[in-house]
Amino acid sequence: MKLNIALLAGDGIGPEVIDQAVKVVDAVSKKFGHEVSWTSALTGAAAIDAHGEPYPDSTHEVCMAADAVLFGAIGHPKYDNDPKATVRPEQGLLKMRQKLGLFANVRPTFTFPSLIDNSPLKRERIEGTDLIILRELTGGIYFGERGRKDDGNTAFDTCTYTRAEIQRLAKLGFELAMSRSKKLCCVDKANVLESSRLWRETVQDMEKDFPEVEVSYEFVDAVAMRLVQWPSSYDVLITENLFGDILTDEASVISGSMGLMPSASKGVHTSLYEPIHGSYPQAAGKDIANPLATVLSAAMMFEDAFGLKAEADAIRDVVNKSLAEGIVTEDIAGKEGKAYKTSEVGNWLASNI
Amino acid sequence: MKLNIALLAGDGIGPEVIDQAVKVVDAVSKKFGHEVSWTSALTGAAAIDAHGEPYPDSTHEVCMAADAVLFGAIGHPKYDNDPKATVRPEQGLLKMRQKLGLFANVRPTFTFPSLIDNSPLKRERIEGTDLIILRELTGGIYFGERGRKDDGNTAFDTCTYTRAEIQRLAKLGFELAMSRSKKLCCVDKANVLESSRLWRETVQDMEKDFPEVEVSYEFVDAVAMRLVQWPSSYDVLITENLFGDILTDEASVISGSMGLMPSASKGVHTSLYEPIHGSYPQAAGKDIANPLATVLSAAMMFEDAFGLKAEADAIRDVVNKSLAEGIVTEDIAGKEGKAYKTSEVGNWLASNI
Ligand SMILES: CC(C)[C@H](C(=O)O)[C@@H](O)C(=O)O
Ligand SMILES: CC(C)[C@H](C(=O)O)[C@@H](O)C(=O)O
Repeated sequence: MKLNIALLAGDGIGPEVIDQAVKVVDAVSKKFGHEVSWTSALTGAAAIDAHGEPYPDSTHEVCMAADAVLFGAIGHPKYDNDPKATVRPEQGLLKMRQKLGLFANVRPTFTFPSLIDNSPLKRERIEGTDLIILRELTGGIYFGERGRKDDGNTAFDTCTYTRAEIQRLAKLGFELAMSRSKKLCCVDKANVLESSRLWRETVQDMEKDFPEVEVSYEFVDAVAMRLVQWPSSYDVLITENLFGDILTDEASVISGSMGLMPSASKGVHTSLYEPIHGSYPQAAGKDIANPLATVLSAAMMFEDAFGLKAEADAIRDVVNKSLAEGIVTEDIAGKEGKAYKTSEVGNWLASNI
Repeated sequence: MKLNIALLAGDGIGPEVIDQAVKVVDAVSKKFGHEVSWTSALTGAAAIDAHGEPYPDSTHEVCMAADAVLFGAIGHPKYDNDPKATVRPEQGLLKMRQKLGLFANVRPTFTFPSLIDNSPLKRERIEGTDLIILRELTGGIYFGERGRKDDGNTAFDTCTYTRAEIQRLAKLGFELAMSRSKKLCCVDKANVLESSRLWRETVQDMEKDFPEVEVSYEFVDAVAMRLVQWPSSYDVLITENLFGDILTDEASVISGSMGLMPSASKGVHTSLYEPIHGSYPQAAGKDIANPLATVLSAAMMFEDAFGLKAEADAIRDVVNKSLAEGIVTEDIAGKEGKAYKTSEVGNWLASNI
């Protein structure tokens, strides 16, 4: 099979972790007889520096021409903490999501037995956690009308959802639930927001099409609590963009394996795979960042974008092996363990595929 | 001193926990020579049943005439999970906040050494946590324009903030920070929302009036993570209504002492004190609910509304004594400990003041 992959390394540690994923993808493709064609393009601060904008048209064309996009991370401190900045790396992210129609962000949170003690939660709370949050990614208050009034003294943002947008996301949620434990939780704030009431109404209407799925409805504040108290009680959760932003990040830290959590964003035009961690500028260039989340994102890409499950499993297996043998970066090596460099982990994975 | 207190017991376990707070307030007032005048009024489901609405005018008049309001909890399952219900108990809460001008919700999260092992977090993560979230309570997306379009197939909500609303809340935050460790964290989503950019801008402008306060700005998703990872790194946080809803609830579970966490809502016309827990309908009428959060809310009332710190401390001392001696309800008694009834705990506290 020919695999056309757009490669957006981004900022900070992005290029370093992406490099390791490339090694692993190349190795697994060689093993299974696929031909990979990589096309790199700039995003984020790197693209602002080169082209004056964080998601240039040239990058968009590369993504549109590819079968899938492998993404690192974006964000750079020189653009932070300035509310008046007009061009920011994050805008590239939003523009990319919108232009590629990446409407569903799939964020699994699961535990690795060997890393469970890294969790801030007690072992008995986190053990067995294996949940997926499906976050709507191209609607809601992220993309609504916003502005100022009264000489800049009043600011507003609008959260808008259409039934069709909700159905599209919820359908993925129901299907995912069918492939797992058949439990779906719709997260909203229907006791306050009209848009949440439309979410709840729409999902309730869809229940009849998926009679085997047991659906629960919970308020976002309650979910923010239960994710810390009993994360293993959740399976598939669906939610709107802003709630998803908060809850997926909250969920990401509970497993103790944040540096290992992959994600996928499914879209109208293509799909994108990226680690959930940020660009960690402090670690950039030091060859210490953990590449496993990016490598596991590449595994999701094989399975979801190319339908190549054996290849995905081969990647997951070699990751598990590296954990078992302690071929890991300093964030998970622990005080006694030996820490390997980012590039050493990547080389080890590629040669052990 | 004459203390005029409006008493809104509400639904579920509300009346039971409020009863215990009344006993304690009466006891401490007797000891310190104050005269308490209680005026009860209905809210929530109880008020819907009696008057057809959850915050009737008669209740509002009682609150307006009082020096402070002591509140239980509202919410009843018969109104839940029905997105089309037109009258809901929670609407009473929102109407009450708006009509009483309760613009600042003060939510402390702290630990009790004897309860620290109840926390879902590991001891070393939660130890020493003592933070306060100041949540804006009468603005934002809770009170903006909302509605439907396109035959009901599009729903929208609007988040609006004015500079004056932000200043009012932030001023309390700066003052609180000055009385504590002089660290203030402004929580927003300024990388996406215009209203958040106005928050950040406004708080930045106020920094010069409080030169001793060290202000940090963090995105809500990052805070949702760090609250679980390093809660003790926070001191005073200020945020808008919806973010505050999610983060205060998240924070409430990390201490392991949710049944003990009090809160205050400061207003233009009066101030209101309530436990942070809900109405737990499942426990209603069983005399098993933990009354300590309500009792500690009464302590906040003595200190903040009446300026009576010695009385507040007397209440806090007797609560600590009850914990030390194990005179506690089943939620914190543990498997081996003896569990006391709600009313027994209240009686013990009142007679040990
Ligand atoms: C950088 C920011 C705009 C973005 C978001 O809020 O969506 C990020 O937090 C994320 O979750 O990918
Ligand atoms: C019941 C609901 C409307 C309310 C809110 O969202 O403010 C509650 O969650 C709270 O935090 O007091």
